[in-house]
Amino acid sequence: MNNFNFYNPVKILFGKGKIAELSKNIPADAKILMTYGGGSIHKNGVYEQVKTALKGFNVVEFGGIEPNPHYETLMKAVEVVKAEKIDFLLAVGGGSVLDGTKFIAAAALYEGESAWDIAAKQLTVSKALPLGAVLTLAATGSEMNSGGVITREATQEKFAFGSPVLFPKFSVLDPQITFSLPQRQVANGIVDAFVHVIEQYLTYPVNSPVQDRFAEGILLTLIEEGPKASTAETPDYETRANLMWAATMALNGLLSTGVKTDWATHMIGHELTALHGIDHAVTLAIVLPGVMRLMKDKRREKLLQYASRVWNITEGTDEQKIETAIQQTESFFRQVGISTLLSEHQVGQDTINQIVERFTQRKMRAVGAQQDVSIADVGELLKTRL
Amino acid sequence: MNNFNFYNPVKILFGKGKIAELSKNIPADAKILMTYGGGSIHKNGVYEQVKTALKGFNVVEFGGIEPNPHYETLMKAVEVVKAEKIDFLLAVGGGSVLDGTKFIAAAALYEGESAWDIAAKQLTVSKALPLGAVLTLAATGSEMNSGGVITREATQEKFAFGSPVLFPKFSVLDPQITFSLPQRQVANGIVDAFVHVIEQYLTYPVNSPVQDRFAEGILLTLIEEGPKASTAETPDYETRANLMWAATMALNGLLSTGVKTDWATHMIGHELTALHGIDHAVTLAIVLPGVMRLMKDKRREKLLQYASRVWNITEGTDEQKIETAIQQTESFFRQVGISTLLSEHQVGQDTINQIVERFTQRKMRAVGAQQDVSIADVGELLKTRL
Repeated sequence: MNNFNFYNPVKILFGKGKIAELSKNIPADAKILMTYGGGSIHKNGVYEQVKTALKGFNVVEFGGIEPNPHYETLMKAVEVVKAEKIDFLLAVGGGSVLDGTKFIAAAALYEGESAWDIAAKQLTVSKALPLGAVLTLAATGSEMNSGGVITREATQEKFAFGSPVLFPKFSVLDPQITFSLPQRQVANGIVDAFVHVIEQYLTYPVNSPVQDRFAEGILLTLIEEGPKASTAETPDYETRANLMWAATMALNGLLSTGVKTDWATHMIGHELTALHGIDHAVTLAIVLPGVMRLMKDKRREKLLQYASRVWNITEGTDEQKIETAIQQTESFFRQVGISTLLSEHQVGQDTINQIVERFTQRKMRAVGAQQDVSIADVGELLKTRL
Repeated sequence: MNNFNFYNPVKILFGKGKIAELSKNIPADAKILMTYGGGSIHKNGVYEQVKTALKGFNVVEFGGIEPNPHYETLMKAVEVVKAEKIDFLLAVGGGSVLDGTKFIAAAALYEGESAWDIAAKQLTVSKALPLGAVLTLAATGSEMNSGGVITREATQEKFAFGSPVLFPKFSVLDPQITFSLPQRQVANGIVDAFVHVIEQYLTYPVNSPVQDRFAEGILLTLIEEGPKASTAETPDYETRANLMWAATMALNGLLSTGVKTDWATHMIGHELTALHGIDHAVTLAIVLPGVMRLMKDKRREKLLQYASRVWNITEGTDEQKIETAIQQTESFFRQVGISTLLSEHQVGQDTINQIVERFTQRKMRAVGAQQDVSIADVGELLKTRL
């Protein structure tokens, strides 16, 4: 196991009716900016629940944060924060609203020239407005971590940012809130959480049995519960609760303690979203089988562990076991309703060339924390996903 | 899954040489009380490492905190805190030193008549001195939680206490520090962590696959790594690192999220320590098989899951599977060098009577969070452990 630091001060309020506890967790004299997305919270009753819980607080609203939140939109929220002298942000939404709100929290106190540099130049964020969250979609893990990803519409660039000052003070996770989600978003969440785990698990062994078994435990839960959520006529509380907790635990820093992480699939996927607006989770489902196959020799040991412990594959040669595990992974994505090929999104070789070109222009020699997926590899593996 | 809140702001500094990072984690102007136990840190080099890391800080020392830390000793430390105007506590030791230091932190700011009431009357602790820890023994999990257990020598009483203000600000976990531990303490730590997991796992199912698999992952790690640590001629870093992380994760609040916990084994074990000074972990190893057997009908479902997933038991009737799992559990304790019977400690029926009498006097009808182990049951199950 490698040396590591771990710190996660987010208070989780999990379960039925937990929105009612909001008022106990926000300073009584706070002036709150309540941020949200396209307005689904007006249809599913979440807006009313939150407003009721915030009775007596001074609340300003900022809606319209889009999926893959745009820098341009978020800077409008920053203007509101400054004009209204906001001192607490409450994100009500999924990963995009949370990520966007973290960026607003940092940008509102940023003193440099362009707040875009926080993401583009990976600046150290040392101060931010406090924020809390009411999660409406189990997926990104943003509710219990200190990072985010934003997109600049003007340049079609998508970058990650993060800082310990961006941990939410609290996150409310009421699985009932996810009942009204469109099937597509539920499926996206399952795949997103699954690939988050894979990115912190499927590289090289470092003798980390606790972390490995935690990762496998989350993957097994997603494999068992995911299809139930995707096919149920009416949402089941327990299924949704287990998916929500699995997604939160998938990216709160615990799985990555002391191990070798990857994130190659995410880095490649981000480009597909930036260029074609494909849902984040779908890009991961497209890219991951390609990464797995390309790395089947280098990452053999961990792939065999994955095949055995997660998919219970005991038959065949090592090569066959790994191939079966990759096929099962792709089948699982398709089973929950997520497409896994570029051609299903009318994306062809020209985009692959464009992505390789972009990485090359950024003077990158490889993607991922292990730097074992070269830019040439990116082109090769994407070809297998056409 | 039940509703829950989860909050754990402890910063973990894990790995080789991490003591050197102490100075970055304590306010520069702090006046520190460094607490420790019987003086083993003077022999194993930890004292020098800590003092070197604290160069430039104003440090007062308080040694002599005993195993099952005594209220009487801790109150002497409180006097030092007040006399020296201490504003930061640094515990250097195992669970007893950490638990004791948490009590000092609370008692130093306690304004009532007797600080013993914090434990005896389970008072709400709303303020405490900040504390940090350098862990020397992987066992109790105190390094990443907000609770402790102390003993009053005068009355042979042992009680738990806790409060969110008692989380350490940070805990340094360097597995190398555990190399010089006596075998008995290493073995105690393994069993202690194991039973901590069991207390949060082996009751009644609530559909909590993530929590269950996390628990099983820690148990499997302890079963694999424990015997290695107990038999190795020279300590192995990786083994010690995995045991240390397993023990920390075993009692940091994560496993108990949303599930039905127990703690019956601990409550009974505490009495054996209070009355006979038997090592805490040994009391757990004595009591647990008795609790498991007594509860084999009520807790059948979870016991069968435990037999299957932790011990890989597939043969026999349900009854036989459970009995085999209980025997394997006891064998594991003995394998790492821990005794499991009262007679091995010259404890007989008179002590059992005394424990039942004590519980009865405290007007308890049952022990444990599920209240499914009656006081009569306590007498019955202890008889099977003679």
